[in-house]
Amino acid sequence: MSGSDQSTIEKETRAAGVLIENAYGKSRVRVSKLTRMNDRHVFKEVCVDIQLRGDFERTYTVGDNSQVVATDSMKNMVYVLASQHPLDNIESFGQFMVEHYLKTYKQISGVTVRLVEELWQRIVIDGKAHAHSFFGAGPEKRVAEITANRDGMTIKSGIEGLKLVKTTDSEFWGFVRDEHTTLPDVKDRIFGTSVTSYWHYQAAKPDFQAAYDAVRKAILECFATHHSLAVQHTINEIGQLVLARVPEISEISVKMPNEHRIPFNLEPFKLANKNEIFVTTDEPYGLISATLKRNA
Amino acid sequence: MSGSDQSTIEKETRAAGVLIENAYGKSRVRVSKLTRMNDRHVFKEVCVDIQLRGDFERTYTVGDNSQVVATDSMKNMVYVLASQHPLDNIESFGQFMVEHYLKTYKQISGVTVRLVEELWQRIVIDGKAHAHSFFGAGPEKRVAEITANRDGMTIKSGIEGLKLVKTTDSEFWGFVRDEHTTLPDVKDRIFGTSVTSYWHYQAAKPDFQAAYDAVRKAILECFATHHSLAVQHTINEIGQLVLARVPEISEISVKMPNEHRIPFNLEPFKLANKNEIFVTTDEPYGLISATLKRNA
Amino acid sequence: MSGSDQSTIEKETRAAGVLIENAYGKSRVRVSKLTRMNDRHVFKEVCVDIQLRGDFERTYTVGDNSQVVATDSMKNMVYVLASQHPLDNIESFGQFMVEHYLKTYKQISGVTVRLVEELWQRIVIDGKAHAHSFFGAGPEKRVAEITANRDGMTIKSGIEGLKLVKTTDSEFWGFVRDEHTTLPDVKDRIFGTSVTSYWHYQAAKPDFQAAYDAVRKAILECFATHHSLAVQHTINEIGQLVLARVPEISEISVKMPNEHRIPFNLEPFKLANKNEIFVTTDEPYGLISATLKRNA
Amino acid sequence: MSGSDQSTIEKETRAAGVLIENAYGKSRVRVSKLTRMNDRHVFKEVCVDIQLRGDFERTYTVGDNSQVVATDSMKNMVYVLASQHPLDNIESFGQFMVEHYLKTYKQISGVTVRLVEELWQRIVIDGKAHAHSFFGAGPEKRVAEITANRDGMTIKSGIEGLKLVKTTDSEFWGFVRDEHTTLPDVKDRIFGTSVTSYWHYQAAKPDFQAAYDAVRKAILECFATHHSLAVQHTINEIGQLVLARVPEISEISVKMPNEHRIPFNLEPFKLANKNEIFVTTDEPYGLISATLKRNA
Repeated sequence: MSGSDQSTIEKETRAAGVLIENAYGKSRVRVSKLTRMNDRHVFKEVCVDIQLRGDFERTYTVGDNSQVVATDSMKNMVYVLASQHPLDNIESFGQFMVEHYLKTYKQISGVTVRLVEELWQRIVIDGKAHAHSFFGAGPEKRVAEITANRDGMTIKSGIEGLKLVKTTDSEFWGFVRDEHTTLPDVKDRIFGTSVTSYWHYQAAKPDFQAAYDAVRKAILECFATHHSLAVQHTINEIGQLVLARVPEISEISVKMPNEHRIPFNLEPFKLANKNEIFVTTDEPYGLISATLKRNA
Repeated sequence: MSGSDQSTIEKETRAAGVLIENAYGKSRVRVSKLTRMNDRHVFKEVCVDIQLRGDFERTYTVGDNSQVVATDSMKNMVYVLASQHPLDNIESFGQFMVEHYLKTYKQISGVTVRLVEELWQRIVIDGKAHAHSFFGAGPEKRVAEITANRDGMTIKSGIEGLKLVKTTDSEFWGFVRDEHTTLPDVKDRIFGTSVTSYWHYQAAKPDFQAAYDAVRKAILECFATHHSLAVQHTINEIGQLVLARVPEISEISVKMPNEHRIPFNLEPFKLANKNEIFVTTDEPYGLISATLKRNA
Repeated sequence: MSGSDQSTIEKETRAAGVLIENAYGKSRVRVSKLTRMNDRHVFKEVCVDIQLRGDFERTYTVGDNSQVVATDSMKNMVYVLASQHPLDNIESFGQFMVEHYLKTYKQISGVTVRLVEELWQRIVIDGKAHAHSFFGAGPEKRVAEITANRDGMTIKSGIEGLKLVKTTDSEFWGFVRDEHTTLPDVKDRIFGTSVTSYWHYQAAKPDFQAAYDAVRKAILECFATHHSLAVQHTINEIGQLVLARVPEISEISVKMPNEHRIPFNLEPFKLANKNEIFVTTDEPYGLISATLKRNA
Repeated sequence: MSGSDQSTIEKETRAAGVLIENAYGKSRVRVSKLTRMNDRHVFKEVCVDIQLRGDFERTYTVGDNSQVVATDSMKNMVYVLASQHPLDNIESFGQFMVEHYLKTYKQISGVTVRLVEELWQRIVIDGKAHAHSFFGAGPEKRVAEITANRDGMTIKSGIEGLKLVKTTDSEFWGFVRDEHTTLPDVKDRIFGTSVTSYWHYQAAKPDFQAAYDAVRKAILECFATHHSLAVQHTINEIGQLVLARVPEISEISVKMPNEHRIPFNLEPFKLANKNEIFVTTDEPYGLISATLKRNA
């Protein structure tokens, strides 16, 4: 129907620009794998995003798809490869996928696979973890991102959405005070956040599960026990603790929103607010981040 | 600016209809309360919705607001009342709010207060619950809805968003098979859901916390251990177990989406799927509910 | 695995309660229908929720599914019936589905079908609506809910999520002023909302499309031109205008959140805010509703 | 309370790592500005995210906040600066903010400001745009990102969330067919997407509004009229058309999810699907992108 319109546009566009970057893939491929052990079931649930880079320019410029691996085929491959891999951890499953792509298709120069794992936990009955029933751990996710080209592979592991709050041992004062400042110095405030953290490995064959467990434990312990003088201060302490405890990790980044609880002003009602009643807010929020690298 | 347009519309609308229902209020009033005990902090975070009914017709019909309690004042009252109540449980805080409204404003004939509690849990370090640091329990919420008029009050408690999955002990077969049926009989399937449950009390002064704990425990245990022949079957079993275990409860409703994990067809790839690889889906989903009342 | 646990629970639960309500169905069945006309394509996209009531008690109590129409079959039926119906409007498609259920399955006593239509609009090029290309109208949806039992059918039509804002012609003053009031009287405020409205018909065979168009036009015109003394006042005016303009409608409800824009206090910065700079907020928000019935 | 725990952790962490990157700021600062013209109101609504880089290391390492501009002050500055700027377009407002930061605080080495504009459109009554009443354009947003350091500034403009669908003139065939391929070649499919596009300028003082209008028009026209052989093909055509039509733009990236409408298989029901009935899906989805640079 649009033949004539199109040819007009084609005349307009000839040779205006040159393609300098391109990528494509499939997102939100969701796979569950159930592994039946003798005494229990292991259940993994992962959402996979794949992006390919490579020799795909002619599909953009003239619609020649002869080098294109269909994103529908990528979806199929996630399930096929999940059936051939133990899916014991998302990092190794991601590596397995990335290697498959590079080995199978010579037109691919680079692959990025991102995996987000749903954290199912065993239901406990009378102190005993159930063999095949689980509850959902909430918004917190375990994540991994594997990026490879023909020269090598990078593995990034992470935690996203770990919600935390502490009700004391958090101060914030001594900051710049000028004509735009209305925030008072605070010696005791509520510190609420939702941690995102990613780390890289220096070990050639790291124990991904042990590293994940150690990072998560360090975040929880440090957040709980550190006497915080700023969100920045706590972020640095978490990064230092992870690097001190987990030798396999070379670098860690931590990002924390400052999800403010604002003291509600009870004065108009002739009441005192002894730092007890707060307005919970989602926005605006502070957003603080840092990356720490292991000292040489 | 719009004077003339408006008078035209007013002429059009005179006397076309009569107001048969009205309500108004404030939604998403979010309050945090911190209570400092000798050995630990207690931290509660609640989101409150309030709706009032009563003698408010003239604000609708002629814009006379003389009987209207501003929704901004309702917001203030949530914080003021939170400072005067221990907020030990959302049911009693809801009652306190509802009583305040009916006592204070004679033009109000009915009040509904809905409270949603964020479920913060103590961080555990070396087996010990921390005194003032917490992590978030995720999408699961504890809820209560208190509705009152001049004749009495109804209290409904609930759980929303409790995510569960079991990997066996769930069948579904023997259903209607006709020209619209393509689903095969299944003797062993994954059963994933997110439970919503509400209950009413027969006790005059129920122990709300104990009832909540008992219902939640019953849901988890029954879901984990019941051999399910249908989602309906499990819902009934949960309802029966709650009524058997918690004498203070008169009635319980349970609603469960059936969040399907669909076996991925590996045949085109010359592989067998031994009930191990599934597509996780959000939609479409089954939605099943029931209400059980205590036998007289 | 859970045989023994389960029998314990069964003993606990026997005869504790009786099933007083039950329902089940399929939610979020999303269907697109493309109709090829001579000069243009018509594209409809609808999300369907179905709930059945009836003689399903034995699936709850003993897991006997012999009367159960599988929710997967319900999903199939949506697509099959969409292929047999013009899908010219969601109300008539909903009726068609409901009638199919009641006619086909004698165990069903009642059906509710809810339909939500995505509002695709034609792309306009050089003033001309394109024959087969569309853009999305955003969060606003057209909805319908058809409920039937063996005695009759009720049709409810609606609009959800129509976002509106006006920057003047909105006042709010003269409300209750007491010890909980801090809001000042306001003679000129921003009025932002997102309209939800449902209506019922008195006509036996209403023109659903014409009614929808007329209601939507009335909401827009009345919101734009009405001099509002309260959100309640505007709601009533909209209801009156709809009843005056659309004789086929017997009753209309309108619900409006009051999405506050709060003047930002520039005084600490020695600047005046001439009602120009506002904080846009999502929460808390006022929520106001009313139902108007046609005068006899 | 946590003094002893903390000192243990401090001992553990000393000198493990070094801070290699840090940034902080305020997110989701939402401002509305109302400008009263003689004949109409102009209403802008923007959500601002700010991130600062600079000499902030001591707040991380020892909690010394003396160089820290509080994120609360950043929030104040958004409103103060909005009162001093016409807010005629988000690009110039972003520049104004960025310049303010660099001029005011010598410890800041870099600033990134991201602005997302809500697209309110005038309500039209009897063919006439209303002076002060608007409806919401939905998920589509206009965005800008301004990044500056002491050496210079980069301005990126964009569109996010423009939902589009076309019901023909879209093919996809001739792609790689191997053991993982099950997708058939398709000569006529539905092409649904939600466009994200960003562009950079070569002009020193571009007309941001004119560029935005021209890009948006080019996207709509090209999507509607281009005969697509792949999503990639359409993306390239859009990029070429923008570069051909808007000389001020140096580079443009376009990202498009492929929001699949999958033909529903009616064969089990002995019906033919003449490419008319589709399952609308959100996931998995294809995701395709490219960046085009103006030819030298």
